[in-house]
Amino acid sequence: MKLPVSTEWVLHCATTLAQLDPGASASVAQLAQYYDLPAPYLAKQLKALVRAGVLTATTGPRGGFRLARPASDITLLHIVEAVDGASAPYECREIRQQGRGALSPEECQRTCILAVKMADAHEAWRRSLTEVTLAGILAELPPSAPARTRARLAGAT
Amino acid sequence: MKLPVSTEWVLHCATTLAQLDPGASASVAQLAQYYDLPAPYLAKQLKALVRAGVLTATTGPRGGFRLARPASDITLLHIVEAVDGASAPYECREIRQQGRGALSPEECQRTCILAVKMADAHEAWRRSLTEVTLAGILAELPPSAPARTRARLAGAT
Repeated sequence: MKLPVSTEWVLHCATTLAQLDPGASASVAQLAQYYDLPAPYLAKQLKALVRAGVLTATTGPRGGFRLARPASDITLLHIVEAVDGASAPYECREIRQQGRGALSPEECQRTCILAVKMADAHEAWRRSLTEVTLAGILAELPPSAPARTRARLAGAT
Repeated sequence: MKLPVSTEWVLHCATTLAQLDPGASASVAQLAQYYDLPAPYLAKQLKALVRAGVLTATTGPRGGFRLARPASDITLLHIVEAVDGASAPYECREIRQQGRGALSPEECQRTCILAVKMADAHEAWRRSLTEVTLAGILAELPPSAPARTRARLAGAT
């Protein structure tokens, strides 16, 4: 059970964008240089965040990406599911209905209790990530972080 | 983020073994027929459960597998981690320490707050699965289930 490596990229990039001045944006090239990441693949991930409504893509000579909503309205779950999808890790293929021990369809009208418990665990994971917003992450950074982030980003091309 | 397909197999097989008479065991062939699963691959998964201390392999002409501990001492987490490992889905490669925005090692003495929150979510998932024992699963089955399970298993070769 693994999340894509790019999960770390998008969590950090979204945190970086949350530290920009209101209305400001950062380009793929700036973000790629900031974290030394491959720009084309990072661009693909950022576009997934746009499709998920987490980021807005801006056009023009100073175009790039910025948060689509206030940092207090973006949770880690929004970001993680934007790049990994929202499907649960456990797949129930109804093996209880096959083989010598097969239960009848009538006996399987309720969801398998094992699938229920696995879904409960996934919901606990999702709930935990829903409780953390980008604003909450920023509140944990040193007070000097946003100014430093903006200065380092501005130096990139 | 996906669990192996065999996760469903081992959860069901462990639940089946929990319904046997005390001291009884079931062979790979019996379990494979019971759920119509490929015996060689199922055998590999059951051996992983033995290594994890969830099952005991018994030898002899009526050899097979049985629970290594009371059903009340075996959680869904024991079973799932036996086949998928215990590593967390989120991998932190410390990209905060690379590129133009790199933080110094001194600034990174505390674990990245994003990694902390992702680990919190994984712990919530684990905790949820720790709260469910095989005994708890059995308690949710119809009262007629264990006798039926034993009869269907006994018919297999």
